[in-house]
Amino acid sequence: MPDPRSSALEFANQHKQRFLDELVEFSRIPSISTDPERNPEIQAAAEWLVEHVGDIGLQNVKIYPTAGHPVVYGDHLAAGPQAPTVLIYGHYDVQPAEPLEKWDTPPFEPTQRGENLYARGASDMKGQVAATANAVAAILQTGSLPINVKFIIEGEEEIGSPNLPEFIEEHRELLACDFALNPDTGMIAPDLPTITYALRGLAYFELRLWGPDQDLHSGVYGGTVHNPAQVLADLIAGMHDEKGRVTLPGFYEDVRALSEEERAEIARLPKTADWYLENTGAPALWGEEGYTPEERVGARPTLEINGLYSGFTGEGSKTVLPAYAMAKISCRLVPDQDPDVVHQQLLQYLEANAPSTVKWEVITMASGPAAISDRNSRWAQAYLKAAQTSWGVVPVFKREGGSVPVVTTFHEILGIESVNIGFGLPTDNLHGPNEKLHLPTWYKGIDALIHFFFNLAN
Amino acid sequence: MPDPRSSALEFANQHKQRFLDELVEFSRIPSISTDPERNPEIQAAAEWLVEHVGDIGLQNVKIYPTAGHPVVYGDHLAAGPQAPTVLIYGHYDVQPAEPLEKWDTPPFEPTQRGENLYARGASDMKGQVAATANAVAAILQTGSLPINVKFIIEGEEEIGSPNLPEFIEEHRELLACDFALNPDTGMIAPDLPTITYALRGLAYFELRLWGPDQDLHSGVYGGTVHNPAQVLADLIAGMHDEKGRVTLPGFYEDVRALSEEERAEIARLPKTADWYLENTGAPALWGEEGYTPEERVGARPTLEINGLYSGFTGEGSKTVLPAYAMAKISCRLVPDQDPDVVHQQLLQYLEANAPSTVKWEVITMASGPAAISDRNSRWAQAYLKAAQTSWGVVPVFKREGGSVPVVTTFHEILGIESVNIGFGLPTDNLHGPNEKLHLPTWYKGIDALIHFFFNLAN
Repeated sequence: MPDPRSSALEFANQHKQRFLDELVEFSRIPSISTDPERNPEIQAAAEWLVEHVGDIGLQNVKIYPTAGHPVVYGDHLAAGPQAPTVLIYGHYDVQPAEPLEKWDTPPFEPTQRGENLYARGASDMKGQVAATANAVAAILQTGSLPINVKFIIEGEEEIGSPNLPEFIEEHRELLACDFALNPDTGMIAPDLPTITYALRGLAYFELRLWGPDQDLHSGVYGGTVHNPAQVLADLIAGMHDEKGRVTLPGFYEDVRALSEEERAEIARLPKTADWYLENTGAPALWGEEGYTPEERVGARPTLEINGLYSGFTGEGSKTVLPAYAMAKISCRLVPDQDPDVVHQQLLQYLEANAPSTVKWEVITMASGPAAISDRNSRWAQAYLKAAQTSWGVVPVFKREGGSVPVVTTFHEILGIESVNIGFGLPTDNLHGPNEKLHLPTWYKGIDALIHFFFNLAN
Repeated sequence: MPDPRSSALEFANQHKQRFLDELVEFSRIPSISTDPERNPEIQAAAEWLVEHVGDIGLQNVKIYPTAGHPVVYGDHLAAGPQAPTVLIYGHYDVQPAEPLEKWDTPPFEPTQRGENLYARGASDMKGQVAATANAVAAILQTGSLPINVKFIIEGEEEIGSPNLPEFIEEHRELLACDFALNPDTGMIAPDLPTITYALRGLAYFELRLWGPDQDLHSGVYGGTVHNPAQVLADLIAGMHDEKGRVTLPGFYEDVRALSEEERAEIARLPKTADWYLENTGAPALWGEEGYTPEERVGARPTLEINGLYSGFTGEGSKTVLPAYAMAKISCRLVPDQDPDVVHQQLLQYLEANAPSTVKWEVITMASGPAAISDRNSRWAQAYLKAAQTSWGVVPVFKREGGSVPVVTTFHEILGIESVNIGFGLPTDNLHGPNEKLHLPTWYKGIDALIHFFFNLAN
């Protein structure tokens, strides 16, 4: 008699077509969360999931309404209290598909071409949700699940998960677990399984400056009134020094330093300077002195200008001395920076540097700390081993420059760490036209998840 | 029998309401020259003028097409070759009215409140054009015009008069005259008639910067790609030193120094620092060290930021690292600066200071040198006397911060000087929301023009 692990893997191998057919069905639903007119499709996607995870054998399956889009829950707890419990996160909502004319095949008519399945949401993240469900299904169809699983699949990730923290707060017991599995962070390259152990936080501000009461004629007043657009430029210019470091007072004080071991590990990643040049089209790279591009993106805090506005921005020339200037400014944060402290540092900088010729204010638009998890945890190591088995290479640990607020939310409310993985690739065109999922990688991912669930029980 | 001057003044006094009604009609036409969609309104304004100046008795009235917006011409040459001929300049185009929400009444629904008429173009300069036509009308209705007049009213002043020089070149004989009257320069205060003997030039640029090929995720790439908005801020910040001086290489080399006598005269003007504070609402003044506010505005060159744009400027937060950033930058020039030289200085500055992390270009949007004329000419003195009669005070001579390129064009092509006057006030919100015309000043201005035309003949 074959061992349960092999049986589950064999089942998965036998049912590739069924898994694909189900994903096609799921991806056909245009569950776009940003568009209120798509609420029926959001509901349809949640109902599809409920039916699907019920079919594979999950229990307590239910749609939980929230103030926004509902959360789908289902669990399988037969492994008993001595076995680990993993909370499997996912989202069933997708980004808008515009510009539609840039898609080679319609975004909600999933189409296989070569090794890829093209559809909005195929990679972000219906395919990832399906992979976790498929792994559980394969095990349940061929034996018993060696761990306890709880699925929490939300419908508002693409709009910033506004109702998820409250849902988690209100369902702490339901969601109690040992750790979370978040398959929303992808792989660095097709044959390089990746564990994302750190995510940057965010502190996003709008800086508003006022000079004269209203726009002035730049000839009649230019030279006597301090131009707020110029003052804004001065203030922004002063936010970095000549070494590319952020000058907000104390900005680096709380930053957790990179260990030599971590730097060595980051150096193993294939995201070289050339990779960044090719993938951005920038004429040359830039950043904080003393760090590699990948270190700057993942492990160092940054300050970016996300938007600038002042005066006349239309075609042609208008000789105006603007009354108002605005910048959107955001900091990506690393452990152990506190977004509220960074807010104070920005205020201190402005108090010290803004001239008396203007009035100013700062509005906080979004805020969340960074997240970092233990690379040596039992959970991370179980996935490391699983992925190594499936791909035959040692997975890499990486720090991600972006933010995944749910990781922080889980940590803050449930006190758990997340294992952040996934089978999406950098070339999947997430959020863009022709989003696709690389199917060979996806099938390997299902295998890796099967190994993972068995590894967790050992 | 009353003398012709008194009859004309009396006529003007009797027809104030008619003059106002006509101005309201004229100001209702949204002849915005910067917006190609407004071409029909530009045409409508030209046609309105043709009809109007024909009605008051001008001859040879005609719309002359140009490569851009047309020029309206009309003359009255019955005074004969021994009488002086004055070329009366005006423009019928207006600035854009944005931001519309800042207007108390719609910009193209002229509205009288108290002593003012509120409308885009009421002061700059439809009201001024109307004042000259009204003075001529009053004389023609009550007797004969003691001088020859030629009206030239263009439709491209607010976009830098790109086709006017060619038109003047091609119509030298038509436009032959002794001097020009340019009523586009306004008064320093309601009871202080003003002759502007120097005007600043203008060199207006758009600086465009490109970084990555497209907008990037600020989390995924922030810290490796130089943010074009930040580079733009750096470049702008470097364009002034800590003494408020412009740092473009050689910027002050050709600047004609102020004489002690001129500085003394400028010091007599009532435009003190307090005046500038009150009239702008700026929290504090600013400018080049070593000069008074009025000297900075009239006799010193400046560099202003007229507009800034980059990335996301809507409501809320979008975590974008922009691909593009743009600034509208203009220099006000004084004698003897050359706008083409300033263009080269800007390019030199950018070549020396723009980092290799971005691509950039500079587009010249408008360009014209400064102008200065003789305070003791027969024409200037005729207006000095006329205005003194109407207001009962000795007019002041001033240098103007704004640019009137046509003054230079007239000088260069026709070899004539201009008498630069007008009845706009510093509080008229030219180019801003709630532009208005102070009607009592306007009526006095019409009287002054009647006196002026009679004085010229003596």
